[in-house]
Amino acid sequence: MGVDIGGKELVTYIPIVTTVGLAIYVTWQALRPKIGLVNPGIEKNEQKVVNSMDIEDIGDSIAFCRCWRSKKFPLCDGSHNAHNKKQGDNVGPICLKRKSA
Amino acid sequence: MGVDIGGKELVTYIPIVTTVGLAIYVTWQALRPKIGLVNPGIEKNEQKVVNSMDIEDIGDSIAFCRCWRSKKFPLCDGSHNAHNKKQGDNVGPICLKRKSA
Ligand code: FES
Ligand code: FES
Repeated sequence: MGVDIGGKELVTYIPIVTTVGLAIYVTWQALRPKIGLVNPGIEKNEQKVVNSMDIEDIGDSIAFCRCWRSKKFPLCDGSHNAHNKKQGDNVGPICLKRKSA
Repeated sequence: MGVDIGGKELVTYIPIVTTVGLAIYVTWQALRPKIGLVNPGIEKNEQKVVNSMDIEDIGDSIAFCRCWRSKKFPLCDGSHNAHNKKQGDNVGPICLKRKSA
């Protein structure tokens, strides 16, 4: 009855094979760079978050958030630093300034 | 020898407990929203990617990428749509325009 390998039924290997397989998967998941949501929390009820601003309203300088973690979104409030540290990332804002300023 | 539960040694439960535990973890990993890198590929040799631009150089309008997938980064090239679809995300650019234009 059943398939024999080295005098044991094949079915007896299922738990160890499953455990090893899952352990490999878990390790791979833990080590690979995680790619997923860029925006975990801002206006998630919107289908697409696009912000607009008139150039005349910018003033002498401005920094726009590109990490999607700012409490002042769409402006940068420095939250990119905590995100970069936590996730091993390297994002930062786009900064605009007036030459004349 | 060993600890008995219901007439069986405790050690005999290790494979099934491990398998069930790992299966729960794998399911949780598969279902939870994935939070990780915002920027998987742009200037990964830089510690922090900050871009700067003079306001006088903008012209009548511009759209800056905030999904970190644009081939024209720091400008938006529409790549946010493919990212949003693939990851179930909702990111888009910051658009600037001149009122007078
Ligand atoms: S807070 Fe998001 S880029 Fe600075
Ligand atoms: S291509 Fe990145 S926001 Fe449009």
